[in-house]
Parts: sequence; structure tokens; C-alpha cells
Amino acid sequence: MKRKYAVILGNLGNTRDRFCNGYKDNPSTMAMLRRAAAIPHVAGIELVGTWDIRPDNAKAMKRALKGLGLPCVSIIPDLFADKRFWKGSFSAVSAKTRRQALDYTRSMCDIAGDIGCPLLNLWPGQDGYDYLLCADYEQEREWLCEGVATLAREYPSLRFALEYKPKEPRTHSYLARMADTLLLAQETGCDNVGVTIDTGHAYVGGEVVSEAIVLAKRAGNRLFHMHFNDNHGSWDDDMIVGSVHSICYIETLYWLDRCGYEGWYSMDQYPYREDAAGAIGESILWLCQFDTIMQKNRAAITDLLKAGDAVKTSAFLRGVLAGGRAKG
Amino acid sequence: MKRKYAVILGNLGNTRDRFCNGYKDNPSTMAMLRRAAAIPHVAGIELVGTWDIRPDNAKAMKRALKGLGLPCVSIIPDLFADKRFWKGSFSAVSAKTRRQALDYTRSMCDIAGDIGCPLLNLWPGQDGYDYLLCADYEQEREWLCEGVATLAREYPSLRFALEYKPKEPRTHSYLARMADTLLLAQETGCDNVGVTIDTGHAYVGGEVVSEAIVLAKRAGNRLFHMHFNDNHGSWDDDMIVGSVHSICYIETLYWLDRCGYEGWYSMDQYPYREDAAGAIGESILWLCQFDTIMQKNRAAITDLLKAGDAVKTSAFLRGVLAGGRAKG
Amino acid sequence: MKRKYAVILGNLGNTRDRFCNGYKDNPSTMAMLRRAAAIPHVAGIELVGTWDIRPDNAKAMKRALKGLGLPCVSIIPDLFADKRFWKGSFSAVSAKTRRQALDYTRSMCDIAGDIGCPLLNLWPGQDGYDYLLCADYEQEREWLCEGVATLAREYPSLRFALEYKPKEPRTHSYLARMADTLLLAQETGCDNVGVTIDTGHAYVGGEVVSEAIVLAKRAGNRLFHMHFNDNHGSWDDDMIVGSVHSICYIETLYWLDRCGYEGWYSMDQYPYREDAAGAIGESILWLCQFDTIMQKNRAAITDLLKAGDAVKTSAFLRGVLAGGRAKG
Amino acid sequence: MKRKYAVILGNLGNTRDRFCNGYKDNPSTMAMLRRAAAIPHVAGIELVGTWDIRPDNAKAMKRALKGLGLPCVSIIPDLFADKRFWKGSFSAVSAKTRRQALDYTRSMCDIAGDIGCPLLNLWPGQDGYDYLLCADYEQEREWLCEGVATLAREYPSLRFALEYKPKEPRTHSYLARMADTLLLAQETGCDNVGVTIDTGHAYVGGEVVSEAIVLAKRAGNRLFHMHFNDNHGSWDDDMIVGSVHSICYIETLYWLDRCGYEGWYSMDQYPYREDAAGAIGESILWLCQFDTIMQKNRAAITDLLKAGDAVKTSAFLRGVLAGGRAKG
Repeated sequence: MKRKYAVILGNLGNTRDRFCNGYKDNPSTMAMLRRAAAIPHVAGIELVGTWDIRPDNAKAMKRALKGLGLPCVSIIPDLFADKRFWKGSFSAVSAKTRRQALDYTRSMCDIAGDIGCPLLNLWPGQDGYDYLLCADYEQEREWLCEGVATLAREYPSLRFALEYKPKEPRTHSYLARMADTLLLAQETGCDNVGVTIDTGHAYVGGEVVSEAIVLAKRAGNRLFHMHFNDNHGSWDDDMIVGSVHSICYIETLYWLDRCGYEGWYSMDQYPYREDAAGAIGESILWLCQFDTIMQKNRAAITDLLKAGDAVKTSAFLRGVLAGGRAKG
Repeated sequence: MKRKYAVILGNLGNTRDRFCNGYKDNPSTMAMLRRAAAIPHVAGIELVGTWDIRPDNAKAMKRALKGLGLPCVSIIPDLFADKRFWKGSFSAVSAKTRRQALDYTRSMCDIAGDIGCPLLNLWPGQDGYDYLLCADYEQEREWLCEGVATLAREYPSLRFALEYKPKEPRTHSYLARMADTLLLAQETGCDNVGVTIDTGHAYVGGEVVSEAIVLAKRAGNRLFHMHFNDNHGSWDDDMIVGSVHSICYIETLYWLDRCGYEGWYSMDQYPYREDAAGAIGESILWLCQFDTIMQKNRAAITDLLKAGDAVKTSAFLRGVLAGGRAKG
Repeated sequence: MKRKYAVILGNLGNTRDRFCNGYKDNPSTMAMLRRAAAIPHVAGIELVGTWDIRPDNAKAMKRALKGLGLPCVSIIPDLFADKRFWKGSFSAVSAKTRRQALDYTRSMCDIAGDIGCPLLNLWPGQDGYDYLLCADYEQEREWLCEGVATLAREYPSLRFALEYKPKEPRTHSYLARMADTLLLAQETGCDNVGVTIDTGHAYVGGEVVSEAIVLAKRAGNRLFHMHFNDNHGSWDDDMIVGSVHSICYIETLYWLDRCGYEGWYSMDQYPYREDAAGAIGESILWLCQFDTIMQKNRAAITDLLKAGDAVKTSAFLRGVLAGGRAKG
Repeated sequence: MKRKYAVILGNLGNTRDRFCNGYKDNPSTMAMLRRAAAIPHVAGIELVGTWDIRPDNAKAMKRALKGLGLPCVSIIPDLFADKRFWKGSFSAVSAKTRRQALDYTRSMCDIAGDIGCPLLNLWPGQDGYDYLLCADYEQEREWLCEGVATLAREYPSLRFALEYKPKEPRTHSYLARMADTLLLAQETGCDNVGVTIDTGHAYVGGEVVSEAIVLAKRAGNRLFHMHFNDNHGSWDDDMIVGSVHSICYIETLYWLDRCGYEGWYSMDQYPYREDAAGAIGESILWLCQFDTIMQKNRAAITDLLKAGDAVKTSAFLRGVLAGGRAKG
């Protein structure tokens, strides 16, 4: 299967954290687009709503993408940086805020229709809680479910991929891991609601990505989208793929194929102090390298999974990570 | 609602770890029963299969429990310490082992019927994996699901509570957290399959217990059983309730009531170096104390959940954990 | 011993994270000062360099503090939000940057002298690394040590408290935990170099604060300053004291006294979505409450530490966290 | 530099955990020795006191090792599985237990002298605490320090390597990480007291091994011994080297050389369900492979450390982990 690589446009922009307001300058959207298009293997673009695309620039963006020959593979409505949603969007206690979240996301759905984008990636990052005894988990989860279902029913030709993440910016997110997100997707009763795996979010959540892929398949083929990055295991460091983990990417690519995933491989990084295009390009090249290893050894891997012998698996991995190109 | 407290009998026995083969002497089953019965508030006993109850001693155990006026609230088949299941029970690669797991658990279900125990607590601790690229997650999960469904269909008058735990003894368990366990329970298609929350397992899994309770309710009232203990957050230390966490137990009791939980509150500890009866008794007394606080303030808590104001919640908690009995 | 409570002024200002540029409005420095002064028990102020105090406003700040009757207990040079130090300050690879860090900190030391502030709290948050194989740990640690030693020798009448933190904004900080920070303090050869414990940083680092206090005492009474907050254990959530942990604050206060700590108790929070003055005030009130419990029971605690019996300790803690003020 | 590989003999024996009393049969000491000797590259043996070597079998063991041409590189006194030390050895509250710990360790030191073993690896696994407010950290740390100093002064020709580990079997160990262990080593005032890094213990402690190596060098070349294994990051899983982490082993080998480490590379695993000799052999082969990569690229790595550019480091690593031997 041919992998289709994409990049979230904002990865090429300014980076900041809660201490420092900006490590880099803020390039224009069009400058970021050109840089993204120049990264080897990039064949699609993922846009953040409001930041990259709005009603007022949708046509221009459509033209720009067409000019570069790059489809918009997904729109991510800004439900996390917009101050209106500081205490939740679809699950906010305020009915007004919940309506705003719906209306705003509808406007993004309309744009998606206009520019031929098939998928909304919903990351409700503010929907969660920070302190114990400060949230009605039952009511708020119900509101979140209703909000997603409302959109999915109104836009049956779009697919809605829920991106889970255990924490940040809240200390606890309602959509925390694959399984709870699948439960909510099922509760909507809509087949066009599925899940996005961000590999780094899965690591923070203590998941093995391959198992999450299997869960999504068993729940009705609900894996709709993939975000790639790496981290040190306890926080969403959004680093270059392969900079910490190696083996689990080989395993992930095997299981994506085996479970019939046909979606995009989108890079989602946060290169605080690195050259952005370089860091994103590295991730794709690592994935290409892991993919070559996996594809050459697919049958051997299937046998290893059946054998369940860690010594055999180790010997295999030594062979495929052998350092053939090391210079003398 | 009147809480019904129980204890897992083995908690009163010998303790060991992978280094030291035994920190304590091994009392007889009947000696442990007497000690358990003497712990204030204990109104039921949970038995581990093979260790505490077998076909050859089931009648004697029934008599002993009757004599003490204590029901057997649950049987936990030994699917974790029996060497036959060292690489899995219901999900083992070996078909023979899977059959053994079924047959052995059937024998425990039969005993449950005989002694009037309504619930099997299934903790398939060996069902998981240690290394990447060493397991066929899809096939093994399917076997696990089939095994549970087979039992649930064969014993429709029993309830099967799946106890999840992220890791140990395997580095990764198939039943890791509430949501993935609910998905599997639903996949069995059986209403008599539900979930056991072990509070310590939830902490290790990064869960807030109250949210897990809500998930179980939304998935069809599938919370069947509760195990209580405490830990430092990263491992199943099986400590005295209240020795690390305080506030979350108050919250947990609130949500158990609100979601209509009517099952047992069973202590599941591992008092390596402590007096066992004393340590278990402390857990129950802490729960009683948290329960008194919660019941006196139930309406106030409901208001706090709606208010979503951490400063108000903090002021409330200062009031209820005020140290009234501190000696001068 | 009378506790002296302080607050870091910036806690009362705007909050933001890497996604959202501002959850609140930015009050003026003087408005923040007035709010800080109004928090019950606040008897001192901790200032962040550049943000709160600079050569151009030092005199005005001195007057304002005098007017409020509040001493400046510490200055925290801004070595973390200033873009010049984005890849390190004292340990930066660039010699020019290292000089800038020294010169800038000297200017803060001069101001401290002018306004009668006895302590510089150094948090070199950017001094660390993100990726493996990207830093010369030996050389950079040496530079960090030299920088601190240079300042400590130049300003012998000031005390320099090194604030450690395992990570953020870098994935790994050079000053990560108490013990490595003590080693560096000793390597400077200066008695006026010590350590700041931020309780939340300690939790993230897997430390028990009381043990860290003992380590600092053994290394020559090097605990110079305390920052207080709480978190969920895996990230520096900077929450209200007592909102997650309870018992360890009682223990911490006991050991601070026993090890002869005479410094300030400064609140260091980040109330993203909370009323700042309310959240800080709550922390102080929690500490007062824990302190009352500890002081009433100091002798009992000493006995418990000698007894080493978790059951006894548990019974004691149930007594002192008994919920005396709960409303019926 | 030629690496010298060793293995801890007990790795080849039975494995168990707190649930299952034994996953394997218990081979005789001599059978384990033969298996160890047959593992490629093994050039030395590490013995656990009491288990593998005692006064009554020391001469026979000496002969057996001589026959195999393998030196005993280290003796690990059993301070962790012996029930006498269940609440601590050198730091136990009981004066009698502390004397027993000293006397027992002296007997191991005497044997070391007799069989020409230059190093005692002290892992005081029971020296720590489980619950808060249950230990006098100051007194117990002092006892631990005194015990080690006493031995180091009595046996000046032996080297004492303190093996740190954050937790297990206690929830908190007194020797938890490199830096606190170095502080204690320095406090003994003895140059023959140093540290053992167990790579897995370092991962659990949140350390980067290379930084720990640098700390030990700065504290007076106190890195005496190395134990190798791998894990998933949150627990001492004692897995095959390279099964989770890759890059950090390359970095570790670089820094061991750069800091002048000349000791042994001893495998310390716990192959619960794996063929022991196979699993240990894999670890050594992985280290050989990482070493080949490192040695071929030592100068390039030095340049990368100076450059501090994650994109360059990533490109380098893709080159050296290229999968040269993957089969088509």
C-alpha cells in the first residue's frame, strides 16, 4: 500500500510555550504552504480552522492548494486556542458556549464542503477538567456526545475523526484514549464518527498504538486519521518520529496495513527550537525507512506475532536495525 | 445507601515479591477466615479459586461461611498464579491452554452455584504481552472475548465482572482500563458481563475513578464490583485506602451512589510488611469516614460539580478535612 | 516557628499555554501588587526579573512594597521567557549568550542589593536538552556550574537558591532534582549557593519532599527557599495546595521544622482558569490548616516515624483529617 | 576500548513474581554456570551472595570459575531476599538487624578476598519505606551511610558499588538515583565507595544514563559498575537490551568511553517467560551492535553533541539504523 504523507500547516509556524511567547517569527500562511509543499513526500495538507482557513480566505486557500497540487486532507476546527472555549466547547457548562462551538464547527464543515476536504479532525482539547470535584462528568460527557452527533447527522458526507489525548491543556481530557473515544463514537449512533490516533498522545496514555488500531477495527473500522510524532513517554513533546521510539513504528505500520487503514499519515509536531521543515521532513523519512523494513519483512513479522518468542523477535530486530549505512 | 464491606481472603495470608519468597507465615484458610470475620464492618468474603476454594473443600467452606454469617460475595478464579496460564488463559496461543482456562473457570462457576455466590470476578492477569512484535493482538483479543462470552452464556444466572489492570504480571494487559474492558464486555453480547474497578489499578492507568464509573453506567450499567486500595500512582502498591489519596475517595463514593451502584465494597490489599487485619480494617474505617463526609455534604457536592470553581471546591474540602479530632 | 507566607507576583497576572495566548487580561504590576497584599497571611513578595522589576522601575517598586509593608523576599531573574536564552542561559553553547545571562543576572543582583532583597532564586529553565545525542552534558554542566559560581563569588552577601525541575520547557533540565542540584551547589565551592524546593517539581521528579529536605540538610544546610503548589504527579500543573495531596504537606512541614528551615513559604501557582487571588489564598489556608494539625501533633508524629507501623500512622491520620467542620 | 561482558548468574535460574511462585524449574548453580559460560562474549560472572556463593561452597565455586576461565567480577550480597532484612538492612531500625547486615556483608567481603573478586555490588533493596510518615529519613539515611563506610574502611582493597533503584521492593528506596547515591558515597569519606548504574533503574528514575555517567565522573570518578537491561519506562521490567530503547544505548556507550569507564558490562535481566540464555545473549549482541555503530561514528557523534541540532542528529541516526540486513 502506498502511504500518503501530509503535514499540519501550523507546524511550520511560530512555536511558544506558557513561559516564552514565541521562539520563532510568524511566517504568513502562504509562506508556510510553500515550505510544506517543498518537504519531500508531502502530498497533502491539514489546516487548522481560523488560523489557516476561514470563510474570508477559503477561496484563496483552495486556489493556493490547487496550484501546489496538494489536497486539504483535514480541517481541525480551533476548539482549543479560541478563548471562548477556555472551559470546554461541546461540553461547556454554558449553553451559549456549546452553541458557539457547534456554530463555529458548522462553519468549518461548510468550508470543508466547499474546498473538497472529506474529514474534520475534532480535537476538543479544552473539554475536560483540572481539579477533582469540579465537573459533572456524566452531564458533560453527554453534552460532548450530543454535540458530535449533531454535527455528524447534519453533515453526513463528511467524516468526523475525534482526536484523543489524555491531558493538556486540561489536566484531564474527556477524550483521553482510544477505547473511551470509541465508546463515545458508538454512542453517537453515526457511522461517520471515528477516531484520530496521534502517536504521541497514545504514548502519553500508556497505549501501544498497534493495540489501539485493533480496538478501532473491532469497533467497526473507526480509525479515520493518523497524526505522527514522538515523545519521551510522559508528555506530548511533539518530537521527530524515531527520535525516541523505533520498534513501535515498525509494528504500527504493520498493524495499520493489516487492519485496512487507508487514510493519511499526517505529521503533527511542535518544533520549538528546530528548523520546522527539517524536523517534519525527518519524520517522514523515518517513516519511509521503517516502512521499507516492514514491507520487506511482513511475512516474517506475521510469523513472529504467532511465535510469541521475545528472543526470536529480538534477533529479527537486530537484523533489520543493523546499521548498514554507518560510515567507517 | 448502606455500604456492604467485604475482604479478599488471601489478603490475610502470606505476602511475597519476586525477590523474597515470603515475608510472613502462611496461616490456614480457616484461620484467615476467623481473622477476616473479626475485622469491624466486614459483612462478606471474596474467595480466590484453588487457593481458598476447590471442589474438595467447597462444602466445608460453605459451612464455615454460614457459621460466621458471612456470604461469599465473589469467587476469583486463579488465572494468574497457576503455572498453566503463564502465557495467558482465555487468550493463550495454545488451544489446549484456552480449554483448560475454560474448564477450570467452569468448575469455579459450578462451585459458585453450589455455595450461592452470585459473581465471578475474572482477572486474566496473564492475558497480555511483554514485548512488542510478540503477540497477535487481534486474534488474542478475539479469543479472550470468546472465552468470556462462552462462560457468560453457559452460566446466565451468574454475573461475570472483568477486572482490568494496565500491567503486572505482564508489561501490558489486554484488559487495561475501564473503556477497553467495556468494549469487550459489549462485544460478548451478554448482559451478565460487566466490570470490576480496582481503585489502585485505575490510578496506575491514569484514570479518575469517578469518570470510570460514569463510563460504565453509560455502557449499560456494567459496573458489577469494586476493589479498594491505594497506591503512589505508578504501580499497584495495594496499600491502605487513604494513605496517599484522600479527595478522590470522597468523589468516588458520590459517583457510585449517583450511578446507582449497589454492589460490594471489597478490600483488595497486599500488606507486605503490615499487620494484615489491621491494614484492611484501616481501609474500611477510612471509607466509612469519607462516606460520612460525603453523605453529610451530598447536596453541596452536587452544587460544586455544577459550579466548576476550583476555589470553591478547595474551600469546601478544607472544611470537611479540617482535623476536628486532632489532639492538643 | 512562625511561618512566613509570600507569593510570586506573576501568579496574579495573565495565564496562557502553548495553544492559547491568554486566558485572562494582563493587569498592571501595581494592580497585581495590591491584589497580592490583600491575600490573607501574605507577608512578602517574590518578583520576576524584567516582568516585575527592572533598573527603570526598581525605585518605584521599592516604594510600593514599602507602602504595603511587604518585603521583596526573592528576585527570580527571567532566564526562561527571554528569547535570548531559548537554548540555555549559563550553559548555552554560545559564549555570547552565556555572557548575556551573567550580565543580566548581575543587573538583578544589583537591584536586589538596592531594594534589600536577600535572595536570588535562579531557575535556569532553558538549561537542558530535548533530544538525545544533541548536547555535551559534561561541558554544559561545567558552564552552568561556572556561571553560578561566578555570581556567588561576586555577590557574597546575596544567597543564590537554585530551583530544580525535571522538565519543561526542555524535555530534560540540567537541574532536575534535589540531589543533582546539591552536587552542583557543592561544586561551586560557595556557601551562598543553595536550593529551592518547588513542591510540584519534586512530585514530578518522583521525590518525597521530606526526603529532599533531609538531603539538603546533610549537604550543609542548603535549603534556602520553598515554592508551594500541587499537581497530579506527572506534570507541573501548578495547582492549589491540597487539591491532590494532603498527607505529604503535613510531613513536609514537620521536616522543614526539624531540619531548621527558616526561610519563606512562597506560593508558586499558575491559575489558568481560576481566580488568581482566590487560588493563592486557598493554598495558604491549606498550609495553615496542615500546620495546625502538625503543630498539635508534633510529638506524636516523631513517635510514628520511630515506630514505622503503617497501621498506626493510618489511624493517626484518620484522626487528624476527621472532617470536624462538615456540615450536617 | 574492548568491552568486557558479564552476566549475573541468577538470571539463568527460576523466575517468579508476587503472584506465581515459579515460572521455571530451578537449575543447579553449576548448571547455570555452564549455561552462562556458553553465552557468546561472556567473559565474567557476577554472583549473588548466599544464592550462588557462601562460605561452604566458595572453594568449589572458585575452582568451577577457574575451570571455565571466568573471573568473578562482583559479588552481590543478598540484602533483599533474606527475610531478616525485610524492613531494611544497614538502615533498619533494629540495631540487631543492622549488625546482622554488617556481619553478613563482611562474610561476603571475606569470600571476595578469597576468590579474587575485586568488587562488592551493594543493592540495599529493602532500605527505604512504603508509607509516608512511617520513617525517620534522617536517622535511617545516616545509619545507611555509616554501614557502608564501616565496610569500606574495613576492606580498603575492595571496591563497593552502590546500586540505586527508585523503588521495588519498597515503594521508595533510599538509594534512588545517581545523584543521591553520589552524595552518600561522598559522605562516607571513602574513595572505594562508588556507584552501579543499572540502565533499567535509571529509566524508571527518569534519568538519561549518559547524564548519570557524567555526574559520577564529576563526583570523583565514582562509576564502578554497569548492569544492563531494558524496560518500558515505568517499572523495572528487566527486559532484553534494545527491545524498547535503541538510541540511548548508543549514547551511553559513547559517554562510558568518554568518561573513562573501564569496568564490566554485566547483564542483569529477569527473563520471566523467555529462554534465559537466549535473552541474555541477545542483550550482549545488541550492545555489540550498538558499539560497532558508535565506534565507527565516534567523531561524528562528538560533532553532533557540539552542534545541538536535532535535525542533524536525526539524519545521522536514520543512517546508522538503516536496516542494512533486512531480508527481501
